[in-house]
Amino acid sequence: MKLKVKKSKINAATKTICIIHEDDAKKLGVIPLNRIILNYDRKETAAVVNTSTSLVHSGEIIIDSELANILRVNTGDNIKAEPREMLISKEAIRKKIHNKHISFSEAQELIHDVEKHKLNDLEISSFLTAATINGLTDKEIYYFTKAMIETGAHLDFGNNSVDKHSIGGVPGDKTTLLLVPIIAASGIRIPKTSSRAITNPAGTADRMEVLAPVKKTKNQIKKIIKDTGGCIVWGGSFNLAPADDEFIEIERPLNQDSMLLPSVLSKKKVVGSRYVIIDIPVGPEAKVKTKKEGQELGLKFRRIGKMLGMKIDYVLTNGIQPIGHALGPALEAREALEILMKRKNHYLIKKTVELAATMFLIKKKVRTLKQGRALALSIIKSGAAEKKLREIIKAQGGNPNIMPDKIKIGKFHKNVLAPKSGKVKYISVHAIQRIARLAGSPQNKKSGIFLNKKLNEKVKKGEVLYTVYAEHKNKLKNAIKFSKKNNAFIIK
Amino acid sequence: MKLKVKKSKINAATKTICIIHEDDAKKLGVIPLNRIILNYDRKETAAVVNTSTSLVHSGEIIIDSELANILRVNTGDNIKAEPREMLISKEAIRKKIHNKHISFSEAQELIHDVEKHKLNDLEISSFLTAATINGLTDKEIYYFTKAMIETGAHLDFGNNSVDKHSIGGVPGDKTTLLLVPIIAASGIRIPKTSSRAITNPAGTADRMEVLAPVKKTKNQIKKIIKDTGGCIVWGGSFNLAPADDEFIEIERPLNQDSMLLPSVLSKKKVVGSRYVIIDIPVGPEAKVKTKKEGQELGLKFRRIGKMLGMKIDYVLTNGIQPIGHALGPALEAREALEILMKRKNHYLIKKTVELAATMFLIKKKVRTLKQGRALALSIIKSGAAEKKLREIIKAQGGNPNIMPDKIKIGKFHKNVLAPKSGKVKYISVHAIQRIARLAGSPQNKKSGIFLNKKLNEKVKKGEVLYTVYAEHKNKLKNAIKFSKKNNAFIIK
Repeated sequence: MKLKVKKSKINAATKTICIIHEDDAKKLGVIPLNRIILNYDRKETAAVVNTSTSLVHSGEIIIDSELANILRVNTGDNIKAEPREMLISKEAIRKKIHNKHISFSEAQELIHDVEKHKLNDLEISSFLTAATINGLTDKEIYYFTKAMIETGAHLDFGNNSVDKHSIGGVPGDKTTLLLVPIIAASGIRIPKTSSRAITNPAGTADRMEVLAPVKKTKNQIKKIIKDTGGCIVWGGSFNLAPADDEFIEIERPLNQDSMLLPSVLSKKKVVGSRYVIIDIPVGPEAKVKTKKEGQELGLKFRRIGKMLGMKIDYVLTNGIQPIGHALGPALEAREALEILMKRKNHYLIKKTVELAATMFLIKKKVRTLKQGRALALSIIKSGAAEKKLREIIKAQGGNPNIMPDKIKIGKFHKNVLAPKSGKVKYISVHAIQRIARLAGSPQNKKSGIFLNKKLNEKVKKGEVLYTVYAEHKNKLKNAIKFSKKNNAFIIK
Repeated sequence: MKLKVKKSKINAATKTICIIHEDDAKKLGVIPLNRIILNYDRKETAAVVNTSTSLVHSGEIIIDSELANILRVNTGDNIKAEPREMLISKEAIRKKIHNKHISFSEAQELIHDVEKHKLNDLEISSFLTAATINGLTDKEIYYFTKAMIETGAHLDFGNNSVDKHSIGGVPGDKTTLLLVPIIAASGIRIPKTSSRAITNPAGTADRMEVLAPVKKTKNQIKKIIKDTGGCIVWGGSFNLAPADDEFIEIERPLNQDSMLLPSVLSKKKVVGSRYVIIDIPVGPEAKVKTKKEGQELGLKFRRIGKMLGMKIDYVLTNGIQPIGHALGPALEAREALEILMKRKNHYLIKKTVELAATMFLIKKKVRTLKQGRALALSIIKSGAAEKKLREIIKAQGGNPNIMPDKIKIGKFHKNVLAPKSGKVKYISVHAIQRIARLAGSPQNKKSGIFLNKKLNEKVKKGEVLYTVYAEHKNKLKNAIKFSKKNNAFIIK
């Protein structure tokens, strides 16, 4: 069926929705939420159908600007619309539900159909849940990684780059903002592409964006790395793993992370990272609950890395409470900058030094971890790390002279007080995470939480436990409402 | 936040979508596909957010007419919009993913949030997949059934009604169209509310709708039953189990059926059916693969029925191939009418007689199954069953004199021929189902398949195996394309 395009700025997050007349939907044999395949000049993609009898005439199709971009069409162009055929990838989903093994060609089909928006969100959600429950074998992870590498843009910032990835799950982790300048200052190239938050109040890209733009082109990144030896940019601005972006869109509301390994490995591979350190936080409410589990995951990363020709190592880190005191993009950027400027002992410095040392070792810059720690610490203490971060901020187009107190925080805030005196015995990572997200993080960059008290600290009744910041009044209200129902702190 | 309503005929199947300005979305702290809670005059529901910078102004909200209906608002009214708070039901979903037990209050929360559209489709899809993989315990099924009964409309067509339900999965099952008139003709009241197809080319409501309207009010149904002793109406026209309708919307594209027992039992309970026979087709491609599995399911129905004060029995039926020759609403209605008129031996008569006999026995109308079979058969042979079906058709507003050859079939059709001579050794239920669905069933009532050959029949090369019917050319093309890639018949 030929349909005449009407461009519109409607946006439904899946990026490819369209509105057609009910009569045309009947002719195509589709109902709302079905997928149709749109074709224009050899470009093809799928779109979610919405129908209307008032917004469009029969023979017309309203498409959003993202879709118009993909197909390169304008208002008035005629595009071809067809119902979606049966997808082989649905068999792959069924297999995972019934705990059977997915083959390489099935993995390819699934990644392809996700990337082309042919699978709908329900189907992807079903697959991700099945993968969460039944797990993925080493071979399946390898297949999905390969398939995602095939569909991704290949940037390759030098085949010998080092890289770091935290599997996340514990809020407040601004380690990358400290680590990249240390490594770059040591003379090792570290082109870091980061993601936005999936389940956390902030991802590295969200944090860095407070200090400098993170949306960069390939050539811009090459120049930044040439000038400074490192960068902290958003990986999502190029199509590193287009299918993974779809997965993340769906994993986010589901709080799931079943495609973790293919997601991480494919993104590292396509930017040419050969040496990768995986940071695995361990804690009762972290993604990984026990050291044993952490080791298993770390070894899995190593094994599959090897299958892909990469050298991977891992560090188990402390994930029993939020990392540092700040949560939320702006608050975290401020804290990272403060730590680098003070250069004094701080848990985050300890953690960063450990990761840096492992990186130096894997790259054979040092011969022992002890040497590596000393080198990392000296780079921080000399001020070389702070200098390098400011260089990178400048190279990415931010203000290199930014001071922590000039970073703007949400104007609405409320203190949460200790209901009694005692010692902080437990901080619920999930509750803190949720309060920060209800307050608006990561979408509202200036929102978040500042923790006044941390684990094992003494506290008096009425003292401030933490402050919630928000950009919007009702977000603050919702966050506080939740905090009243769910104690984030246990004091004994 | 207060927003001014603009009604629109946009339709996205979930029935409750809205479009707000991007700026308002930011203020509410929501992104597209998030839910917001809408309030007007003590009526509350959730809606899926779409954002736009061109279709609405800030301060306005476009809502579809379904949503306008729920809230009883018109263009110009001011409604209250709030972000969705954290849902307790998400914990229930997480529990099922981790194979833990869901409590009654959690089941209530989940059903309530599904019914109020507060849970989004991804979350429901995740729950259904988890329930498919990890299963539901007897207690959980009982809890979900109770929770669904609480939210449903209670019709109660007489506390002693008999009822029948097929768990489905095998296409072509028009048994209900034969069974209801037999039971009603015997003097037992059988108010049958049926559903539309979930995974099949036609559901009973779809088939019956070809013969007479199936959308009836409570009072209309009471009158039909009073006049004829039976009815075959669509259960979806009243809110029998509003949450279940949501589940089905999502189960359909996923081809899943994990809420089968709560769905069936709650719907039977709220219409006052105390005696229920469950038809369980068994076959390699049916929902139930083995007799053992079928017995387990049947006993589960019995056990949970007992917990609910119902008397339930089951019959295992033949599900190794499509039932009868016709698939698709119109083709199946035609076949059912033909069988009742010919009154000759036919597998469908055998099956219907078996179900009727079990029903007579459970209602104590007869003392043995043998007596029951004889009674059922005599009602068919005497013509009383056909007469009763025509009475019901008339009472529901259809043409009581309809002849099979007057039932219209799709004008586009194509024969699929035998590639060689031999015997039909296997018919793939899934492949046949898919071909019929690609041809347009059940949405396009006149589309479907007529099987010329069935299991163990001899066939010559070039003879017609089956004919595909469609209302739209491209649907026929897609169905035939699929049939060429996937052999539905194995001939040896």
